[in-house]
Amino acid sequence: MGEPKKIIIDTDPGIDDAMAIFLALRSPEITVIGLTTIYGNVYTTLATRNALHLLEVAERTDIPVAEGSHVSYMVHLLPFPLPSCTCYLIYFRFTKKNIFLLSFSPCVKKATKLRVADFVHGVDGLGNQNFPQPKSKPIEKSAAEYLVEQANLHPGEITVVALGPLTNIALAIQLDPTFTKNIGQIVLLGGAFAVNGNVNPAAEANIFGDPEAADIVFTSGADVLAVGINVTHQVIMKDSELEIMAESEGIFSKYLCKILDYYFSYHRDAYSMKGVYLHDPTALLAAVNPKLMTYTEGVVRVQTSGITRGLTLFFNKQKRFHEATEWNNKPTVKVAVTVDAPAVVKLVMDRLMTS
Amino acid sequence: MGEPKKIIIDTDPGIDDAMAIFLALRSPEITVIGLTTIYGNVYTTLATRNALHLLEVAERTDIPVAEGSHVSYMVHLLPFPLPSCTCYLIYFRFTKKNIFLLSFSPCVKKATKLRVADFVHGVDGLGNQNFPQPKSKPIEKSAAEYLVEQANLHPGEITVVALGPLTNIALAIQLDPTFTKNIGQIVLLGGAFAVNGNVNPAAEANIFGDPEAADIVFTSGADVLAVGINVTHQVIMKDSELEIMAESEGIFSKYLCKILDYYFSYHRDAYSMKGVYLHDPTALLAAVNPKLMTYTEGVVRVQTSGITRGLTLFFNKQKRFHEATEWNNKPTVKVAVTVDAPAVVKLVMDRLMTS
Repeated sequence: MGEPKKIIIDTDPGIDDAMAIFLALRSPEITVIGLTTIYGNVYTTLATRNALHLLEVAERTDIPVAEGSHVSYMVHLLPFPLPSCTCYLIYFRFTKKNIFLLSFSPCVKKATKLRVADFVHGVDGLGNQNFPQPKSKPIEKSAAEYLVEQANLHPGEITVVALGPLTNIALAIQLDPTFTKNIGQIVLLGGAFAVNGNVNPAAEANIFGDPEAADIVFTSGADVLAVGINVTHQVIMKDSELEIMAESEGIFSKYLCKILDYYFSYHRDAYSMKGVYLHDPTALLAAVNPKLMTYTEGVVRVQTSGITRGLTLFFNKQKRFHEATEWNNKPTVKVAVTVDAPAVVKLVMDRLMTS
Repeated sequence: MGEPKKIIIDTDPGIDDAMAIFLALRSPEITVIGLTTIYGNVYTTLATRNALHLLEVAERTDIPVAEGSHVSYMVHLLPFPLPSCTCYLIYFRFTKKNIFLLSFSPCVKKATKLRVADFVHGVDGLGNQNFPQPKSKPIEKSAAEYLVEQANLHPGEITVVALGPLTNIALAIQLDPTFTKNIGQIVLLGGAFAVNGNVNPAAEANIFGDPEAADIVFTSGADVLAVGINVTHQVIMKDSELEIMAESEGIFSKYLCKILDYYFSYHRDAYSMKGVYLHDPTALLAAVNPKLMTYTEGVVRVQTSGITRGLTLFFNKQKRFHEATEWNNKPTVKVAVTVDAPAVVKLVMDRLMTS
């Protein structure tokens, strides 16, 4: 075994994010060099607070946390002043020397409105447990700046495991176009390939969270590996496995058993199932041991408008179309197709129950 | 066996349309009471000419042909005068007392531009064979008027087999909202369910031809059965089977062998395959003998904008979403999932080779 792979986890904790972060810290194949935060399961401010909190629980406050974007990618692109349009409602919020425009004309409102899944993870993102405020602080750099810095510092060596909307990654590409070359790999949890989504029938939550950013990442030319819910919906931790975990004395399993109740309860209501999908841990393990899954390669584009906004459409390159299409001449990405689900669940359980 | 099922074929002939029409005329389980025409493989005028020609070949000029829409559904909806917009290029064409607006402002242009697949079927739609002009004429009624009339005349008894874009069916619904109740069933060839399309990675040709009309039909509440290319791509007539057909003395098989060369040649170029997909005959047989396929039931919506315009998205109803979605409270349709492909190919061959 060579040197452990350097990993930055881009995360919106989130109950299964907490599992993935703890799992990463217990995986000898990788070294977590930093966390970056993003909205998704919670707003970014809370994601940062939770990331710091989880590192305190793990006694790993040596790992830096860089706070990510509070708004979707589109907002960063908006010209100032805005183009003329009727019915403006402009609200400015000044933060960290940037002016964020939070409310816009109806035409861009949809692309800038954040969706936060507190009904899945609790209003605190961690199962409504009233954990104490973390004492540690994020670093001064933004997530995008930190990603670019680290990619330049260790060209080709870093894997970003992106567990939320892809805003930070798209911003890193915008900040430094060589990021796509300098970053080793981007393993992302996102997409619903040839299956229904989990936000609506068309879209998976992370891609729906920032479709414009996702389309940039998928077509950037970076080495991208996407793990979609077509795969993670095969990886289920059952009620009975939660009971086994509850018996363990490991600090991570003890902590997780407290917050997992909320997550199990959501799955009972939404999917009528006795168990939970291990989305984030599965994506993390794709970076730890790619052999747990099989992959296909093709071009992925993201629909950014209409009723299927956030849909990921994979082209298998099996047909030569008569007309040029939006998939032509775009770089390919890898997309997970099958997974050794029992092996993934076992690895998650074993590593999290280690004391 | 009861009385034969009354069938109206809505068609854009089209090489595989010719196969489907001849197959229908040789199927004792059904009676073809009329043909309606639509653009798709060719423009509507040529589709009408070809429908009349095929009935002459079959010596069945007793079957009426009603000419369908020359333009997509959106064009019928446009207000007059058009809303103010820059860069208008308005071209009027007067035909049959209606004013069709053929060129519009950029914002509606996409929804009104017709796509015609002459590169699949030849510029004449029938393999460039220079067949003589038909002597017979279409009836005075438009396709939509004829569909409404027949549905009212035989409530619940008629199956429309729609082999092209769904403009005529949507117009029939607009003309008479009770059409959805009075029509027995709509069996349509359309959609790419959880697979890549054939116009581009997202869209299948018939749905792409008029996405707005397709969305109306799918959500109309009528008894709809959709046969998509996920199914018809399993039904292949091989080169060797064409050779067998060429030996037959049947009038239909003799005629079809002349026009099928062009279709085989397109499949070699586009799909690198030695054979052709039996799209239209497969959909027709779904009406003749539904047991040749298995079906699932759910809500289908059609994306009408952006890079996946024309995409059909089926919702399997396995999840309760937190937010309301565009699939909520919409009527379900049946979608073909599997097909007994060898049985379909055999039935097509046997019936077309009968002399």
